[in-house]
Amino acid sequence: MKSTELATCLDAVRATSPLVHCITNYVTVNDCANALLAIGASPIMSDEPDDVEDITSICQGLDLNIGTLNRRSIEGMGRAGAKAAQLGHAIVLDPVGAGASHLRTDTARQLLESYHPTLVRGNMSEVRALGGASSSTRGVDASAADVATRDNLHESAGFVARLAQAWGCTVAVTGAIDIVSDGTRTCAITNGVPMMSRITGTGCMLSALLPAFLAAGTDAFLATVAGVATMGVCGQKARSRMTGADGTGSFRTYLIDALSTVTGAELADAARVEDL
Amino acid sequence: MKSTELATCLDAVRATSPLVHCITNYVTVNDCANALLAIGASPIMSDEPDDVEDITSICQGLDLNIGTLNRRSIEGMGRAGAKAAQLGHAIVLDPVGAGASHLRTDTARQLLESYHPTLVRGNMSEVRALGGASSSTRGVDASAADVATRDNLHESAGFVARLAQAWGCTVAVTGAIDIVSDGTRTCAITNGVPMMSRITGTGCMLSALLPAFLAAGTDAFLATVAGVATMGVCGQKARSRMTGADGTGSFRTYLIDALSTVTGAELADAARVEDL
Amino acid sequence: MKSTELATCLDAVRATSPLVHCITNYVTVNDCANALLAIGASPIMSDEPDDVEDITSICQGLDLNIGTLNRRSIEGMGRAGAKAAQLGHAIVLDPVGAGASHLRTDTARQLLESYHPTLVRGNMSEVRALGGASSSTRGVDASAADVATRDNLHESAGFVARLAQAWGCTVAVTGAIDIVSDGTRTCAITNGVPMMSRITGTGCMLSALLPAFLAAGTDAFLATVAGVATMGVCGQKARSRMTGADGTGSFRTYLIDALSTVTGAELADAARVEDL
Repeated sequence: MKSTELATCLDAVRATSPLVHCITNYVTVNDCANALLAIGASPIMSDEPDDVEDITSICQGLDLNIGTLNRRSIEGMGRAGAKAAQLGHAIVLDPVGAGASHLRTDTARQLLESYHPTLVRGNMSEVRALGGASSSTRGVDASAADVATRDNLHESAGFVARLAQAWGCTVAVTGAIDIVSDGTRTCAITNGVPMMSRITGTGCMLSALLPAFLAAGTDAFLATVAGVATMGVCGQKARSRMTGADGTGSFRTYLIDALSTVTGAELADAARVEDL
Repeated sequence: MKSTELATCLDAVRATSPLVHCITNYVTVNDCANALLAIGASPIMSDEPDDVEDITSICQGLDLNIGTLNRRSIEGMGRAGAKAAQLGHAIVLDPVGAGASHLRTDTARQLLESYHPTLVRGNMSEVRALGGASSSTRGVDASAADVATRDNLHESAGFVARLAQAWGCTVAVTGAIDIVSDGTRTCAITNGVPMMSRITGTGCMLSALLPAFLAAGTDAFLATVAGVATMGVCGQKARSRMTGADGTGSFRTYLIDALSTVTGAELADAARVEDL
Repeated sequence: MKSTELATCLDAVRATSPLVHCITNYVTVNDCANALLAIGASPIMSDEPDDVEDITSICQGLDLNIGTLNRRSIEGMGRAGAKAAQLGHAIVLDPVGAGASHLRTDTARQLLESYHPTLVRGNMSEVRALGGASSSTRGVDASAADVATRDNLHESAGFVARLAQAWGCTVAVTGAIDIVSDGTRTCAITNGVPMMSRITGTGCMLSALLPAFLAAGTDAFLATVAGVATMGVCGQKARSRMTGADGTGSFRTYLIDALSTVTGAELADAARVEDL
């Protein structure tokens, strides 16, 4: 993949400003909204079953994030997912905490099977649980035993590619090394910094941004890689600004700053994408 | 209007520290709470129908914001609205996304008709939808076709004034040019900066602040103009601090900083209010 | 108490990274998650009754905060509380707004009586209401008439100690002077700055951090004092960084920064704990 193709994806988001319907958790929802605005897209949040069909109909993409799912929002995700699928909108499924509870695993599987998302994005433990593989998920973070490393990269990439084939969609597994596959093409992205896991919401923000990249682009694989690389590059930009007494609070602010200022040219320069 | 009258309104908020009951959306609720604390008032959030009557009874104002409405919170808004109206509290209605879904438009109209808010604050698309005018609302932002501009200012102001007369309350339509009318008096406020629309929540924060201004003041029109001008002046203060790699994340922080430090004298100096 | 014991408590949190289940309000939940991550622990939020038992089972502590309680989350708190009690997990009850509504007072009492929390943390008005004492609570802040001062410290400390004995748990009443008692040992902590009450969530963040301190330690009284002193010391660190146009927005960022960088040695140096 050429790095200029990534720049084109980011530029398209800024040029077309997709409206993204987010049904997401109440922990990081403000960060998701500000991340979408920062990247040049527009967010709208609605999880009431009687509201979601109208709302998703005026959008170009849908983010389904089960981070603080409840009976009502599960019903809302179902009605929004059905409508978005019918309209051919980009749908991103973020199975937050799949493997950590029966309700989360079951809900994520049902959303996956019923509404055929364009993209599943999660950490390795969540994606393993969604795929029925044994997993040592604990909470909303991947367990150390599950994560992709330089040593297991070939095996991890093969696993992600098989899931993408089985699910008929693109899959993005993020962590220290990110892996994206559509079943045919697979790549690793090594942008990002460890500090990103010391604030809440970097995964959620990425899942909220990706429907905008998918809506603005024409190739789901390429758009996903561009979105993942953008978040990683912005994490690096944010980390590089930290000085003196700055800690994770400042890092969070700098990350949104970076999303609002990153250019296609910067992305093309800084993206580290490796075809596998 | 004299600019010293605006200063008096802001000083009264800081002097009396009104307690404001907010039933608002979960996207920007933290910003609303911090905005109220910054301006010298106190927030309390409660949307459970069995809780809201007690809570609103100890407050001086009520903010009804339908940004992430659901069946339960709609019931909560109804019970809070009835109690607040009975007690003569200041009520602000923010019809977020009216026009974007049937549920939002219908809920906003029912709240308007049943509880006679002191003030309706929204963008032009939302207010048009609430008034039954044709609107091209998309999501939670005003459509370009709807917004007040220097060219259509007279016509826009007349429209807002007629709504204020029809609804029997003050109406604030905010955007690049803000228009406030109580049906008799109408003015335009040209503070604020475009960056305010690149973060989520500036409208919601304003709607949360306004019950405090209304509770602290005696003239709803004047109190509303003061609140709208305060937010705009603080947006300008925040924008003027941005340097180097600062983006929308830093702007959001600086905006709360400005709300916490702005003085009546600064407001009187910087407010740009034009009687129409 | 030796200050090195406090340092040991903080170091233990960072070394063991407890997973804390938070059922908390949607106003400050993002700050709670980021505070836990900053201090070296991990948060997971879940309030759906069908989800909470699985989630709390994989955690080491539970935070029950009634700040925006509703029927569903009250049911979730009950099921989570029962499971956590059965598993012997640390449970912290934060009775936000007890005394301000019947539902809040009743819910807090029921949680206290049914699930025997390890620790109750609130402001003096809330704790008085929970204990059935007359209180002039207004909203979510303590009333001026209730707060512990240097003049009433002996009386206030005795009151807190009697509640701790009656409830069979540790009690932390926070304010300008914090009082912690387990019924036998009682101390006052005089860290912290007034600015902490000008942002939302410092109490909620502390209540979210405390299950991590309790899970990482062996002595609930000591762990609580360490957690309370850590928050106060971080408030002072944050305040000391404020310059120029900084206001409450920057203070909030600096507070998270401080939580993410404070060391055991700093805590030992700066903690002001007075045995009573």
